[in-house]
Amino acid sequence: MSNHASSKWAGVFPIAPTPFTESGELDLDGQRRVLDCMIDQGVDGICVLANFSEQFALTDAERDVLVDLCLSHVADGLPVIVTCSHFSTRIAVDRARKAHAAGAKMLMLMPPYHGMGLRADETGMLEHFARVAEAAPIPIMVQDAPLSGVNLSVPFLVQLAQQIPQISYFKIEVPGAATKLPGLIDLGKAAIIGPFDGEEGITLMADLDAGATGTMPSALLPDLIKPVVELHRSGNRREAAAAYARILPLINYENRQCGLRATKAVMREGGVIRSDAVRHPLERLPPVQLSTLLEMARDLNPLALSWGR
Amino acid sequence: MSNHASSKWAGVFPIAPTPFTESGELDLDGQRRVLDCMIDQGVDGICVLANFSEQFALTDAERDVLVDLCLSHVADGLPVIVTCSHFSTRIAVDRARKAHAAGAKMLMLMPPYHGMGLRADETGMLEHFARVAEAAPIPIMVQDAPLSGVNLSVPFLVQLAQQIPQISYFKIEVPGAATKLPGLIDLGKAAIIGPFDGEEGITLMADLDAGATGTMPSALLPDLIKPVVELHRSGNRREAAAAYARILPLINYENRQCGLRATKAVMREGGVIRSDAVRHPLERLPPVQLSTLLEMARDLNPLALSWGR
Amino acid sequence: MSNHASSKWAGVFPIAPTPFTESGELDLDGQRRVLDCMIDQGVDGICVLANFSEQFALTDAERDVLVDLCLSHVADGLPVIVTCSHFSTRIAVDRARKAHAAGAKMLMLMPPYHGMGLRADETGMLEHFARVAEAAPIPIMVQDAPLSGVNLSVPFLVQLAQQIPQISYFKIEVPGAATKLPGLIDLGKAAIIGPFDGEEGITLMADLDAGATGTMPSALLPDLIKPVVELHRSGNRREAAAAYARILPLINYENRQCGLRATKAVMREGGVIRSDAVRHPLERLPPVQLSTLLEMARDLNPLALSWGR
Amino acid sequence: MSNHASSKWAGVFPIAPTPFTESGELDLDGQRRVLDCMIDQGVDGICVLANFSEQFALTDAERDVLVDLCLSHVADGLPVIVTCSHFSTRIAVDRARKAHAAGAKMLMLMPPYHGMGLRADETGMLEHFARVAEAAPIPIMVQDAPLSGVNLSVPFLVQLAQQIPQISYFKIEVPGAATKLPGLIDLGKAAIIGPFDGEEGITLMADLDAGATGTMPSALLPDLIKPVVELHRSGNRREAAAAYARILPLINYENRQCGLRATKAVMREGGVIRSDAVRHPLERLPPVQLSTLLEMARDLNPLALSWGR
Repeated sequence: MSNHASSKWAGVFPIAPTPFTESGELDLDGQRRVLDCMIDQGVDGICVLANFSEQFALTDAERDVLVDLCLSHVADGLPVIVTCSHFSTRIAVDRARKAHAAGAKMLMLMPPYHGMGLRADETGMLEHFARVAEAAPIPIMVQDAPLSGVNLSVPFLVQLAQQIPQISYFKIEVPGAATKLPGLIDLGKAAIIGPFDGEEGITLMADLDAGATGTMPSALLPDLIKPVVELHRSGNRREAAAAYARILPLINYENRQCGLRATKAVMREGGVIRSDAVRHPLERLPPVQLSTLLEMARDLNPLALSWGR
Repeated sequence: MSNHASSKWAGVFPIAPTPFTESGELDLDGQRRVLDCMIDQGVDGICVLANFSEQFALTDAERDVLVDLCLSHVADGLPVIVTCSHFSTRIAVDRARKAHAAGAKMLMLMPPYHGMGLRADETGMLEHFARVAEAAPIPIMVQDAPLSGVNLSVPFLVQLAQQIPQISYFKIEVPGAATKLPGLIDLGKAAIIGPFDGEEGITLMADLDAGATGTMPSALLPDLIKPVVELHRSGNRREAAAAYARILPLINYENRQCGLRATKAVMREGGVIRSDAVRHPLERLPPVQLSTLLEMARDLNPLALSWGR
Repeated sequence: MSNHASSKWAGVFPIAPTPFTESGELDLDGQRRVLDCMIDQGVDGICVLANFSEQFALTDAERDVLVDLCLSHVADGLPVIVTCSHFSTRIAVDRARKAHAAGAKMLMLMPPYHGMGLRADETGMLEHFARVAEAAPIPIMVQDAPLSGVNLSVPFLVQLAQQIPQISYFKIEVPGAATKLPGLIDLGKAAIIGPFDGEEGITLMADLDAGATGTMPSALLPDLIKPVVELHRSGNRREAAAAYARILPLINYENRQCGLRATKAVMREGGVIRSDAVRHPLERLPPVQLSTLLEMARDLNPLALSWGR
Repeated sequence: MSNHASSKWAGVFPIAPTPFTESGELDLDGQRRVLDCMIDQGVDGICVLANFSEQFALTDAERDVLVDLCLSHVADGLPVIVTCSHFSTRIAVDRARKAHAAGAKMLMLMPPYHGMGLRADETGMLEHFARVAEAAPIPIMVQDAPLSGVNLSVPFLVQLAQQIPQISYFKIEVPGAATKLPGLIDLGKAAIIGPFDGEEGITLMADLDAGATGTMPSALLPDLIKPVVELHRSGNRREAAAAYARILPLINYENRQCGLRATKAVMREGGVIRSDAVRHPLERLPPVQLSTLLEMARDLNPLALSWGR
């Protein structure tokens, strides 16, 4: 672990969608094309098996196939983050071990959660993260998202970072991220290597202003999000804001109307994947939303809309 | 009730903020100025004592003062909606009666809720709404908002509208409003006179596309939201979308970073009110967010930013 | 505040129900009789305006009437606790001031909450409690109940107790109270004067084993709960357990089937109050549950079942 | 499906715990002994892979092993119910198919849920249940439990039963089960073959009074719960209540203090299994709770406490 701090990943690390065939099987060829498209989008890294990858609708066996496929396909250079979240520490540890063995450069992990009632207290969460860290000597991104139903306080996140050196990246995507991020950075100091945000970039400007060094949007338009991050980083906040304003209607439509279906719909339209199927009880976008989404996408022409055409 | 259907209010019905002095008292002169500013914003109606009015931080006595003040001040023409929500049916009824006596043209009502566990079943909710309707012969706007923690299904909303003729307006501001609205309109037909949205307008275009005939944003920039609604209504969707895209960064910043504090901050800057104080445990915007907000507001120059200067 | 520690209240502090007439008004005479009955039950103190008093269904004016009535009626000796919870710090402060002026010996307070989303962070909660403490120089009981939707960690509760000396009593009624109480006692030491439990006594034996020195049940059968507490306190755990086992079926039926309606139903049957009305959308017990409850009560014959006959 | 109605299972169908070794592996020999012990408890059926089986902490591969082991071990006579719940319809369908192929007589299924936000609407839930029903021609027990975070209304449950004939059993274990069960039975009539309850039996008497024909407690003391059910069924309600009162302290301690750990602790003490290990972040009972539990169990001497001695 001595050198992971030196790398200090930053920038745009989108979530790869998991494409399915019309009959609902994994589309492995499509998965490779998704990754190729994302590489061409100029992303700084790729995260797989996250919630926008429909991880909650995959079998363990499918996970194994996808980890191996994604990590062998993105073999050189680009860091791949593998999400390992599971309520059971033992299963999260096993997932972490497999991901590291397959070549993952980072793990992403939510605290334990299941349904409405099953959570762990802070001691249990600390042990959960510590055991995963022991199992794989690579950095861990803590995912702080409402889906878990867990309130992760800034002091607790800093405690995690201080007691478990591999925990150095944080995807903060709860309401108030732009006030949580500076609190985390101020209190955690050098232990906080990568304060990132998420949520499709709907709070990106505020979070960059607040000190975020990276963002984990969907794979819908990372090629258009990257200039915002780079302009902001180079001190051109005004230009960053203008570039962001231009793409905000699409991000807003994705964030509020589509969710993970937006990337699949645009990638299908762009010839990246053959089907925008999602797994039931999720449903494809209804026709009206689909056509509005595609119309909005056409105005901006992100790479995903034309990559395979 | 025979003629309320004929009025069919539509358009922009923003929430009036409740201004406080620096020492935390009601600022009654400020309240009158807020209303005057809103009239000058060209709004189609005004809603008072809603959540963005900090109704959850007012005493009963303050409510009474505000109802009388607002309704006597907006005496002619413009419809005023008074929010009467309370867990107790008896108290909601009493509020409705007072609001009607003071001149309210419509009531807004959430289903009963208190804390995490106290809710009513559908029978109880139906009775709750029915008793309020009996108490005041004016239309009722059902507020369908996540704050209540109540899932109001489309069939139940339609049942409300069919069994209680005064229930004819619906402020849908839950995730997925743009799919809930068409469901409501299709199933409820003529019983649904006013399908509105809320949430500061963050989903306005999608909701207008979905059939919304009105919107209940904050009082931050209704003068700039109104053209979007009117362009859309007159069939110029493309222009509406362009007008909306221009104001979306500010709406997004309000929706995600500021909440009800945005209107107060801009109205104070614009000389409408003397203080942007909110009631503890709410806190004023921190300096960084305040200056970002004002900078974004200056780019658009809504009336609230200059009204009192 | 120098001497409140010396008092160290302990034992059985039940919640007084708020009786209504059949037409839904406050029944002030009934309220006095409720208090008289509770005094005769041998309680160690009385808590008014709590959730089992239907505080969530009372107007501010009714609160004022009840505070004055209850504190003047229980004038000597027995300590009365007044619940002052409100989302707004200003309103909670005002309630505390009035309660103290009327003669309250202790306040009970939940952290700020409203609906599903409005809560305060730990800084805001600390300020909330501190301002209430400043307003009234009497001990405060922190109510840690699921209704607030707030997770109050043991370290935070201890911080409250250490920074605000008046905060010295804790009603812990969340799942796992019997593991939270020893944590609180161990960490907070002398700052924790009164670790109490609640929830109608459904976890009483476990909580007494865990160090609880008091309990806040309903007013249904405190005369039968008191021997359990006293036997346990005097080291006769086996006898305490036997006494508890005898009353557990009724407590279980109250806790799971009736809630606050059990006390009202039994007190009406026992001639303490004339009506078991609750405020809509709450509903009286259905006939089957009522008759089962009364049958179970008759087996134990708590004072409330015969006091007024 | 023609004859499943004729069987009309009723009575006591406890959940089998999943034993682990001290190092956290499945203890397959222990699993067989658990099943043997449960058969000797005189249960009317056995449910595997439920929440009290720690299904949320098992891999897919472990599930497969357990389904095969349990169904081959309980080969004759006694019906085995296999829980197949998963957010993904496809995965639930696959689990149902495997369970049926292995010999399951019934499936148990929650509606789709994942974390805090992922749920399905009623249409989606209906499809979910329908596809599982298609995959395996055996009865389905709908599990209506707070863990799912889904509110299943009585009309919707009846709709499920009417549209999907295999859906005929209902495990109602939400607050207010004793009022939900009669509603379900009255509205659903012949479509409701098995209205059951759960929650360790903490509301058993009220639920039996309300029409429950079966109960799904833990495997801690089904031999002592069975007489309650049988006495009640034969019209001896008073004797049933007395038998229930005798075991209520232990059930209450299990329900509020121990959860699924109670059965494991008692079965280890009774020589049924070698370890009471649970999977992290769950933790074994602390020593104090363990000794209190065992002391309470000794007073009643359920079979699990001595079976293997």
